[in-house]
Formats: sequence, structure tokens, C-alpha cells
Amino acid sequence: MTLEEARALFPVLERIAYLNAGTFGPLARPVADALVEAVERDAEHGRSGLPYLEQTVALRDDARQAFASLVDADPAQVALTSSTTDGCAIVIRGLGLEPGDEVVTTTDEHFGLLGPLGASLATVVVVEPDPDAIRAAVTSRTRLIASSPVLWTTGAVLPLAELGAETGVPVLADGAQAVGAIPTTADGFDFLTISGQKWLCGPDATGALIVRDPERIAVTSPSYFAQTGYDPDGAYEPQAGARRLEPGWWSQGTLRAMLAALSLRPAWCFERAWDAAERCREVLSGRVEVVTPAERATLVSFRPDGEKPADVVSRLAAADVHVRELPGRGLVRVSCGWWTSDDDLDRLVAALDT
Amino acid sequence: MTLEEARALFPVLERIAYLNAGTFGPLARPVADALVEAVERDAEHGRSGLPYLEQTVALRDDARQAFASLVDADPAQVALTSSTTDGCAIVIRGLGLEPGDEVVTTTDEHFGLLGPLGASLATVVVVEPDPDAIRAAVTSRTRLIASSPVLWTTGAVLPLAELGAETGVPVLADGAQAVGAIPTTADGFDFLTISGQKWLCGPDATGALIVRDPERIAVTSPSYFAQTGYDPDGAYEPQAGARRLEPGWWSQGTLRAMLAALSLRPAWCFERAWDAAERCREVLSGRVEVVTPAERATLVSFRPDGEKPADVVSRLAAADVHVRELPGRGLVRVSCGWWTSDDDLDRLVAALDT
Repeated sequence: MTLEEARALFPVLERIAYLNAGTFGPLARPVADALVEAVERDAEHGRSGLPYLEQTVALRDDARQAFASLVDADPAQVALTSSTTDGCAIVIRGLGLEPGDEVVTTTDEHFGLLGPLGASLATVVVVEPDPDAIRAAVTSRTRLIASSPVLWTTGAVLPLAELGAETGVPVLADGAQAVGAIPTTADGFDFLTISGQKWLCGPDATGALIVRDPERIAVTSPSYFAQTGYDPDGAYEPQAGARRLEPGWWSQGTLRAMLAALSLRPAWCFERAWDAAERCREVLSGRVEVVTPAERATLVSFRPDGEKPADVVSRLAAADVHVRELPGRGLVRVSCGWWTSDDDLDRLVAALDT
Repeated sequence: MTLEEARALFPVLERIAYLNAGTFGPLARPVADALVEAVERDAEHGRSGLPYLEQTVALRDDARQAFASLVDADPAQVALTSSTTDGCAIVIRGLGLEPGDEVVTTTDEHFGLLGPLGASLATVVVVEPDPDAIRAAVTSRTRLIASSPVLWTTGAVLPLAELGAETGVPVLADGAQAVGAIPTTADGFDFLTISGQKWLCGPDATGALIVRDPERIAVTSPSYFAQTGYDPDGAYEPQAGARRLEPGWWSQGTLRAMLAALSLRPAWCFERAWDAAERCREVLSGRVEVVTPAERATLVSFRPDGEKPADVVSRLAAADVHVRELPGRGLVRVSCGWWTSDDDLDRLVAALDT
């Protein structure tokens, strides 16, 4: 597959310089088709019957397998979730954190991680997203390092697996901006969240949670998928592996579309996305204050000069260039994917310069 | 809208005697179209930009409003969920049940309610689904009555609101088989779960939770929708009302399709569904052991004579008659909706008699 062929997969790229995969990836034609075909099938044949249920269960197996391959995990370590928020919450609730326990996080995390941390009983220790600062914040009371291998704010990368190995503290890696964007494996993470709808270009409300040892955390919200048998008082036999943590249902369309999205990634996807982000950083550097460091993934953030970030985003949107602002941080964020062309970036620059 | 016009909305009814809304309702053409159109729009224009987000937020407001109207609640008491399981879990976790606390439930609940109860620290007291038995099980340690206004097993109705009023114990009503099937209001329930995909014929992974006093329970898994502002340690300002309990994202297609499904219900829907279930009970009564009592909703369950329930279901499916078995209970369940015709029931009987 060439870049031209790759771009032709995505209808949105025909007109729009789509630079917002950090929020939602572009939907490829085969992914949209999978959704549409499943809806038509469901409408005509009903969402019913043992074969239908068995097919759904088989598709869930396929999806777990596909996510496992993606990050070098075992399928038994994969739980299908509806978001990284979901994944973070499952882990944080499941650890049963108590008053006095500490969790180390950084100033640059998404609410999807922070919200569940804030709702826990632990003390949340917030430090700069810097390996030394994280290392220094670890005490004998630290139960978890909860952070992101790629920061959603600046695209900077953090060596979380190394920090986990050095400190011996379990690591929850919020992979929202990492998995699918840069080479990322579950290795070194006790818990890794994956977003289906961002860099993997899957349908809405999809994700996965990789758990190194699924039996180590409590299941706080068992869904029907969590069990293999139960008593009238709710005592139940948990499923083997991370399946016991799965919070809910994906439609057949969602399952088929997610599998379609995972199957169309070209071998050169990481290289191309990295190069596009490098070029993005270069072309922006002369024009605006780029805050993304050299050691980065595929997000490039900048501080506009004398213009509100929201106004920059609106102005670019009017020129069919899609980026986003980061509320409260004074930043505009550009997402570069394996489908991003030089022309997309030229359009970004031209729209900025207007 | 006549019954003929109503039936013409649902493609599945052209060929199939679809009697399984207690699992998944039939998808109407306008509902499927809403899903398909949204997917095409998302693929062509991207899931991105402030107008897109604002539109999604407005659609969520519309959906809360529509669910509120449906059960005579205030929109501020409505949280959008992905299932009744989700709703039950949000409530049970949020109550912060402690060892020694008791929850009264019945022998006839779904795992979507039982699972979260089993995962809680409370003692789960299981009694027959009978008002006297429930009343007798309430003690000074009872924190919650958690049951279903319509049992998923037999379709029998339970006067849960009255039991709550009599005992003074908060009631969690799992409305999976009630809302959309029979006239049901939130009145008298501290918590009411709604399934979007069953009797309301909405898309997969939809539901709502009605909470009489949303500020009375803890938010254990705040999503981005739960807050209006947050600190770096995860402390946050909760949204007003039940929105603070919302666990996650619905795609625009899901939102539009759910709204479409809610808008096409005819004024006579409850009467027709009740009549269809009455006729179903009558035609089955001479043939098999019907376990559904006279005081029932729109589910009719029976115990096949000398044939495994799974075999009955398969045999009927081969004749394009869709019902389901209830694993472990030896029952086959027939769901009658406002779209169910006499002919559907004749086909059921004919297939049974074959």
C-alpha cells in the first residue's frame, strides 16, 4: 500500500486536512462499510438467536486477539472496553486503594485518568511529567504510577516502563495517545489502556485494557461477560483472564468495524506518522512557539502568538484544516497520522499564515 | 399510525415472527437510517470540531429529555448509560455499601443487577419475587430493595414503588423489561434503569439511569461528561444533576437513532403490546405449561413438555420464529411488542405444534 492508496481509504481526506486523530481518527471506507452493513443486517434479520450471539462472542475473541497482537500481549490479558476512561476506572477501582495509599501522576494527564484517581481514596501526588520528578515522588506508600507513555498535551514521551522497573511500583499506562501512534507494547506495564477510536481509526466508544495479571485486581462491576455461572445472590464464577473485567456490549457493527480498522494499518504506519510529525514540527517552528519536545510521538502542540487557541482552531476549520485546542492550556494541538500528507501540512501552514 | 403502518417500519417483520424484544428490540427503518447516515457523515466530514462536539452535547440533552418524558422524570435526573447493567453498577457502587448492610433482592433477577450486588460488600438477601416475602425480608440493616418491576424470567410484575413507600427503604428498580413495555414512571423509585435496545427499539449499548436525588450517591467513575472543571489531582467540580454519573460516550449515530426510536412509538403502544401478550398467553396455555401469571407485562414464558428449551428455540428459529430460552430455568420466553401481530402468534403456535 502506498501513501496515495492509504489516503484513498479515508473519505474525509478528500476535502479536509484532517489533523485531529488524537480526538477521533478518520474513518476508513471499509470501517464505515462494516458499520453500515451490520446495521442493515441487524434491521433485516434481527439482533437475535443463538448463532447471532455465538457470532458476537467469536467476534469479541477476534477483537481481543487483534488488540493483543497489536501490543504483544496475550489475548487472555485483553478486556474490551468502551474507552480509555473505562479502562483507567476499572483498574483504579479494582486496586481497592485506601486512605494513605499514594498514586503518582503528572500535571499533563487527561480527565479520563484523573477523574477515576480523584474518585479514589488514595492521595494523588502530582509532579511534572519528567522521569526524575516521577522517581523522586515514589515513596513506600506509592501503590501506582498512573501516567501516559505519550502526553495528550504536548505529545512528549515518558519512559514509564523503565520507571516501573526501576521503582518496582505497578504502572498504569494510559495509552490513549500512544497505541497506534508509535510502537507500543504492553511489556513493562501492569495495565495499559487503548483507545479504539483515536489512532486506530475505529468506531466510537471502543477501547481495550491490557492487564498483565487479571487475577490481581478486584472486579468491581461485573457485566454478563464477566462470568461463567452465578448464584441468586450475585456470587459468581469469573471468566478466565481479563474478560472478567469487561464492562459491556459492543454491537456486531462495532466489532466488525474495529477489526476492519485494525487490519488496514500498513507496515510503514509508524514510520510515516513519525516523519509527518517531524515535518509538522519543523514547518511550525519558524511561525509559532512549538511546545512539543524533540522526544515526541505524533502530536505537535503550539502556543499561538496573540490569538486565542479557540480562534485559531475556528479559523483553521473554516479553511477545512482540523486541529483542536487544549482548554486551559493555551495550546493548539496537531495530530499527524500515517495518512497525513505533506499537502495537509502545507494547508495547515497556509491557513495559519492567512 | 395503524398496526399495519407500525409493522411496516420494521424490516425484520417482513420475514420473521420477531418475538425477542426482551433481548433486543427490532430496529425500525428510521432508526437504521439514522445510524447509517451518521456513519456516512462521520466518514466524510470527520468526527471533529467544536460544532460537532456542541451538536453531540445538544443531542445528549435531547436524549435525556426524551428519556425523562418517557418516565415522567426531570431531565436533570437522567444519566445516559450503555445498559441497565451499567445503571445498576453506578447505583450500587455509588451507595458505598459496607459489610453488615443488607440488600433485598429476588430469585428472579438478571446478572446485570446481581453481578454488581455480588461485587458489593453488602449481604444480599434473596427471597421469592413476592411482595410479602420482600416486605418480610426488610430489616433495620436493609439499605436497598433491588429488584425488577417486571421480572425477566416470567414477565410477572412486582409493586416495587409501593414496597418502597411501605418500608421506607430506597428502591433500585431494574426497568429492563418494564420501560417501553408497560406504562412505567420513575415515581416511587429512587433509581430506575432503562434499556435503550430492548422495548424501546434503540441501537445497541444504550440505556439511561433515572436518579431521584443525584447528589445523594457518590460518583465512583467520573467520565469527562461528569465534570465542569478539574484540578491536576483529579479533584473536580461535578456537573449538576445525574449527568455527573454518566459513564461515557455515545456516537452521534447512536444518539440520533435512539431519538428516532423514541419518537416513533404510537400512542396505542402499551395497549397493543398488552393485548398481544394476553393473546400469546391464551394460545400457549392449551399447549404448554405457561409460567407467566395473570398479572404480567409483555413477556410470556413457558416450560416445554419433554423437549429441551434450547431445542425448542432452535426449532422455532428454523421456522423464522424468534424467541429465546432462559438458561438454567428450563423456560422459553416470548416477547410481545406493539408491533406483534396475530399472525406472528399464529406462526409461533404452528411452529410449536410441528
